[in-house]
Amino acid sequence: MIRLTPQPLTAAAFAPFGEVIDEQAASGFAINGGTSLRLNDLARLDPGEDGRVLFNLFVCRQSISLPHQPTVMECHPLGSQAFLPRHFARFLVLVAPPAPQPDLSQLHCFLSDGRQGVNYARGVWHLPLSSLDLETFVVVDRGGSGNNCHEVSVAGQIEVLEQ
Amino acid sequence: MIRLTPQPLTAAAFAPFGEVIDEQAASGFAINGGTSLRLNDLARLDPGEDGRVLFNLFVCRQSISLPHQPTVMECHPLGSQAFLPRHFARFLVLVAPPAPQPDLSQLHCFLSDGRQGVNYARGVWHLPLSSLDLETFVVVDRGGSGNNCHEVSVAGQIEVLEQ
Repeated sequence: MIRLTPQPLTAAAFAPFGEVIDEQAASGFAINGGTSLRLNDLARLDPGEDGRVLFNLFVCRQSISLPHQPTVMECHPLGSQAFLPRHFARFLVLVAPPAPQPDLSQLHCFLSDGRQGVNYARGVWHLPLSSLDLETFVVVDRGGSGNNCHEVSVAGQIEVLEQ
Repeated sequence: MIRLTPQPLTAAAFAPFGEVIDEQAASGFAINGGTSLRLNDLARLDPGEDGRVLFNLFVCRQSISLPHQPTVMECHPLGSQAFLPRHFARFLVLVAPPAPQPDLSQLHCFLSDGRQGVNYARGVWHLPLSSLDLETFVVVDRGGSGNNCHEVSVAGQIEVLEQ
């Protein structure tokens, strides 16, 4: 059993897997006569050559608690997938680099602070949405033909400890 | 002076201008073993032929109150622009159909209930972000070359009344 403690979710630590969407960390520029700040282009949206970008909401109906033993990891080989909690839900970000199967010796584990989102780059192994609170997430990912969801069982192999 | 009272923001009423992003109204399908509901493809994201889709946050630093006299309308001739309040901010949705100049005889005025977002179709005239509360908005729009923001003054011509 691999036991991991979530690390803080920073842009630098997460860079091999995609981008952190973080209002507190991003710089922006004033628009609309100074009445708004635009935090621009925060995620490298990648729908692939033949896909298009979808705007979705995921309504999380079952939350997890730590310690947590995930049963499944998944990846999307054809496009990126961005998650942003709509309100304040922390969610678990357990990732492994793109590969035919997730290499569990290369797992990295983070916890969103509840305001942060992430954009998983194409092919990055990650958990199905695993939120510590019931929440709605903005999800921006790929639509199009082809099999864009691979899942593998990791039951009994990983435990995520409390932070 | 044109005086308008905001109407409820429904998919049917807003259809000529784009889509309403509405968690309460959308139907979805279960994913991730039933732990989440996916409300799929809620906005027709349109970055045009030579653009790409951007994921941004707009931090609204100055809120409005009703009655309100807008001073500017704008349109994006090269792509769509979607707005979703991150939390619970109502915002004003004053629109006119695509045209070289906004036809003020064809204005429609709506008020988001604070959970609803909208996706403005390419070329639709609308207000710069006009929120009734300080709020962060998820904004998904177009990046790319070309002049994608036209603004016109409507100062002294429109008053939006309380709902």
